[in-house]
Amino acid sequence: MSIESSVSRRPWLGWVLFLGTVVVVFLIGLFASTIVERRTEALVAYTPSTDIADREPRNEVWGRYFPREYQSYLRTRETTFRSKHNGSGLVDALAQDPNLVVLWAGYSFSKDYNQPRGHAWAVEDIRRTLRTGGPLDGKSGPMPNTCWSCKSPDVPRVMAEIGPAEFYRGTWAARGAEIVNAIGCADCHDPRTMNLRISRPALKEAFERQGKDITTATHQEMRSLVCAQCHVEYYFKGAGNYLTHPWDKGLAVEDMEAYYDAYDFSDWTHGLSRAPMLKAQHPGWELSRLGIHAQRGLACADCHMPYETQGGVKYTNHHVQSPLANIATTCQVCHRESEAVLMANVYERQDKNLEIRAAVERELVHAHVEAARAWEAGAGEAEMKPALTHIRHAQWRWDFAVASHGASFHAPLEVARILSSALEKAFQARLELARVLAAHGVTGPVLLPDLSTKEKAQRYVGLDMEALRREKQEFLEKVVPAWDRAAAEREKGYGPRPPQ
Amino acid sequence: MSIESSVSRRPWLGWVLFLGTVVVVFLIGLFASTIVERRTEALVAYTPSTDIADREPRNEVWGRYFPREYQSYLRTRETTFRSKHNGSGLVDALAQDPNLVVLWAGYSFSKDYNQPRGHAWAVEDIRRTLRTGGPLDGKSGPMPNTCWSCKSPDVPRVMAEIGPAEFYRGTWAARGAEIVNAIGCADCHDPRTMNLRISRPALKEAFERQGKDITTATHQEMRSLVCAQCHVEYYFKGAGNYLTHPWDKGLAVEDMEAYYDAYDFSDWTHGLSRAPMLKAQHPGWELSRLGIHAQRGLACADCHMPYETQGGVKYTNHHVQSPLANIATTCQVCHRESEAVLMANVYERQDKNLEIRAAVERELVHAHVEAARAWEAGAGEAEMKPALTHIRHAQWRWDFAVASHGASFHAPLEVARILSSALEKAFQARLELARVLAAHGVTGPVLLPDLSTKEKAQRYVGLDMEALRREKQEFLEKVVPAWDRAAAEREKGYGPRPPQ
Repeated sequence: MSIESSVSRRPWLGWVLFLGTVVVVFLIGLFASTIVERRTEALVAYTPSTDIADREPRNEVWGRYFPREYQSYLRTRETTFRSKHNGSGLVDALAQDPNLVVLWAGYSFSKDYNQPRGHAWAVEDIRRTLRTGGPLDGKSGPMPNTCWSCKSPDVPRVMAEIGPAEFYRGTWAARGAEIVNAIGCADCHDPRTMNLRISRPALKEAFERQGKDITTATHQEMRSLVCAQCHVEYYFKGAGNYLTHPWDKGLAVEDMEAYYDAYDFSDWTHGLSRAPMLKAQHPGWELSRLGIHAQRGLACADCHMPYETQGGVKYTNHHVQSPLANIATTCQVCHRESEAVLMANVYERQDKNLEIRAAVERELVHAHVEAARAWEAGAGEAEMKPALTHIRHAQWRWDFAVASHGASFHAPLEVARILSSALEKAFQARLELARVLAAHGVTGPVLLPDLSTKEKAQRYVGLDMEALRREKQEFLEKVVPAWDRAAAEREKGYGPRPPQ
Repeated sequence: MSIESSVSRRPWLGWVLFLGTVVVVFLIGLFASTIVERRTEALVAYTPSTDIADREPRNEVWGRYFPREYQSYLRTRETTFRSKHNGSGLVDALAQDPNLVVLWAGYSFSKDYNQPRGHAWAVEDIRRTLRTGGPLDGKSGPMPNTCWSCKSPDVPRVMAEIGPAEFYRGTWAARGAEIVNAIGCADCHDPRTMNLRISRPALKEAFERQGKDITTATHQEMRSLVCAQCHVEYYFKGAGNYLTHPWDKGLAVEDMEAYYDAYDFSDWTHGLSRAPMLKAQHPGWELSRLGIHAQRGLACADCHMPYETQGGVKYTNHHVQSPLANIATTCQVCHRESEAVLMANVYERQDKNLEIRAAVERELVHAHVEAARAWEAGAGEAEMKPALTHIRHAQWRWDFAVASHGASFHAPLEVARILSSALEKAFQARLELARVLAAHGVTGPVLLPDLSTKEKAQRYVGLDMEALRREKQEFLEKVVPAWDRAAAEREKGYGPRPPQ
């Protein structure tokens, strides 16, 4: 018996079939929507309905609401910058290249300089480096409080309380009990909306001095600008060591050089050549802007914090690291080449610049040693000035080109251009010095000391490494535990710490 | 009255309508096929069924069968290399940069050096340049027959008759009546199959010496290798001036330098410094291989001879020129940026390398002048040798990096690397010279002469330009017309010239 004939005999059956079909189709629609949208989990994860306090410095408190971001952040304890080339972990840059000890003679970087590690190490590493010395109270030690500026979300918290100028004042040991949480959530995010937020005044101030309003930046721009709070060139201005970006004349290496020259600013006087030196920090943002990836609209986060999915949730991987550690989610989003080819392309760019860099370092070391010999031979200030100015500019340019992460990949040709100009200036210094030396009876070549190891180089520039290490050990044993106890006591006032 | 009722009254009408529809649909199919396939014209144009003789040197004979390729080839008379920057036509490189006159002192390039023009100018330009002098018979003149090697499809024709070694022998004026057709079809194509073909023995021989068989090259490789017959580094070996590519130790700038050093080869002795100099030719192929476009599999022809369509015919544009002249059919095949952005990207790469290049030239000019002063002051051969070797290597590297077309776009970072090493060596020469000069009582800086114009620079290096121009004029009036008459007479034997 056909349905047709059944229905014609029982008219209400048609309605049952019709309504039944409606209900079934509706349910199928609901399921399909769930499968296609995969939004439910995303809503739970992303709706900013948290009770995180403004300026909350403890990353684990944020981590309760954003477990994926937080867990990926924790992996910044695994350091990978060019790790496939020279191993991971704490890499001693001075041991790898003892020339650096001579280049930084008279400055703290000649004591201790390791290749950078991930964000989660920030506080531990600044406590342990010999550069910060072994201050046993809050008034001694070689470094100012400004050195904390990029190390922790405790910095914007304290700045909100006392203002930036007061924050920078005093020695580094003065705020050891305040700055305890490593670089994390509050450095870049607003706790209520999770919007990206500039937490450091220096960047806002630098933009203002250039007539730009950083609050009008787009989200894509902010995905670089939050990085630019720290991964940029800066200096400590005046007696109050006020953190300042030297961008008033522009962002090119020559612009900042002109800025510093106009102020007659120098970071230190060189221990051998007595040249008034500049230490470039890490102008990563300024240099990456000049490369093809930034020119094509990419932000730092596009490659260093790629989007990933877990289950139905798309999130930003907060394990900030070299894109080469994860080529499938970084380079290969756009480039169709194999991992091996892409990696070879990057290393080729780095290796060519490393070649120029090595030449610059060679000539600069010669220039410092020859200048020292010229002083010894009785050269006067006026005679030496042109050579010392060339040394200052050469080393500034060299440092600018090599001090930041990945610059020779970000902007390979700009780095080569800068290194070439550094090479030119280093040689100009040596030509000047050859004439000064000849005028004082030194006509043969000035021989270099044995700089084959870090230890020999450090002895040559007059460092007592044993004393520095002893002093640091005492500081780590006596001072740091007291800082941590005081911080734990203080943080009790912030509300409960989440279960680990 | 409906069709249905008409047909039911007249049954044969249904068949008429059915068959009529079949016919119409068939015709529409025919048209559609013609429109979609567009192959008819292509078959006419591309089927290699010509009666062109092997080694036919007259491009217009080939042009009868391949009008699109030929007509686009004729447009190589319009020269566009960076023309948007500095005007088109014959650009005097020595007037633009009088330093070149000093760098090439004692060598013919200091007499006359114009920016290159298109293929169709090849014979006219080599006749007119002051570098080839004004030989009034087949035995005088400064240049060997080898200079013709890349100028004309008459070259493989004559080589097929007498062999390459015999071809190279003797002075340039000896073959003036033989070599009359500008670079064209037979240089790269087989007349029967139109396949790409290596017509120059030097390239095959260089590959053989490296253990490579050039006949196994793919079509895509051939689309670069036919260019590599001429746009490469070479030298004239031995008394017979045998054209040779110095690639036996490798294709990098250091490899070829080592090759020349091992042979103790020099192109000339410098007129000021007396350094044993190398002249880089135009290692365009060697350098472009090291750039990202070649690394991604592109051939020269992909950008310099893009595919275009005329009517239904796809053909290769034989107006070989800068891809910037036609961005829509070159860069934009892959890159989605605007013309303005792409052009700015190219010029940025060129400008950064031009900056390093200018520094190298400045230091090299100083080095030559300082070396001349050192000889004057009584320096001896042994003392001067280290400085002269540095000058040789510095200028070789500079020339290698800048002499070919577009190298600072093809391989920007490799060019920067080479120029930096040139800068280093130029300064090392100057440092050595400072010591030699001091040892001979010259302690102050050696001042440069006025090199602000080409004329002043040429006077400084001792050139009598008036005499050179007079000699050339006489040659153009007396010798060249006789060459052309003899050639026309000879070509009568080749069969009819097509109507123009």
